[in-house]
Amino acid sequence: MTVGTVAVDSAWLEQVKWDEHGLVPAIAQDATSGMVLMFAWMDRMALAQTAATGQATYFSRSRGKLWRKGEESGHTQRVREIRLDCDNDVVLLKVEQAGGIACHTGRARCFFQKLEGERWVTTEVVLKDLGRIYK
Amino acid sequence: MTVGTVAVDSAWLEQVKWDEHGLVPAIAQDATSGMVLMFAWMDRMALAQTAATGQATYFSRSRGKLWRKGEESGHTQRVREIRLDCDNDVVLLKVEQAGGIACHTGRARCFFQKLEGERWVTTEVVLKDLGRIYK
Repeated sequence: MTVGTVAVDSAWLEQVKWDEHGLVPAIAQDATSGMVLMFAWMDRMALAQTAATGQATYFSRSRGKLWRKGEESGHTQRVREIRLDCDNDVVLLKVEQAGGIACHTGRARCFFQKLEGERWVTTEVVLKDLGRIYK
Repeated sequence: MTVGTVAVDSAWLEQVKWDEHGLVPAIAQDATSGMVLMFAWMDRMALAQTAATGQATYFSRSRGKLWRKGEESGHTQRVREIRLDCDNDVVLLKVEQAGGIACHTGRARCFFQKLEGERWVTTEVVLKDLGRIYK
């Protein structure tokens, strides 16, 4: 079956073990620095579109719809590599992060809180204010 | 409240947004190479124990119990850093991987399948046969 220009019933998509909601976890890693940038979810269409377009596309559980990363912020992710884990139920992307900002808070990555003793400490600066990202 | 020697109601644990099953996704990354090794889940006790012992401990959804990584294989993970994402609902560990093998298949990492065209291709070799890991 083809939806738009994207085939969603290819054998490689069938091999992925989608959970009871039709989703798999997806991890985005910076292709250059190796930094783990963010974590999100993908449905079948998100993964199919990611592969077809080379632009990371996720499924927003809160909004219940596809979400091409950067569609509002401009902080798109060009996909260099798509990997699947040993249980076929987790996806790992290597991406080139546009603007060097993956997090919706304006930071380079979402994992900016580090446990120090018994406190989560913010270790990354805001590179761009939200007012300048979301116009 | 303390279970065994581990406090499970600390403020930093309360700040984590556990899902409806009391879990959060956890990503383990090699502290030296930056390689994303594996993905698993943690409940409150798993994260508390990970922080208290410095050994990565996850929650096995299939077995419904805590699982100290490497308890059977010897491929333990010494935790160098614990991070939390912007939504407080995903954990990232930086670990030293004992034996250089994170995957239960005997490979360095779980993400050993790479999408090439329309095929998942295995890109990593088995470093140790299963018969020699699980005795």
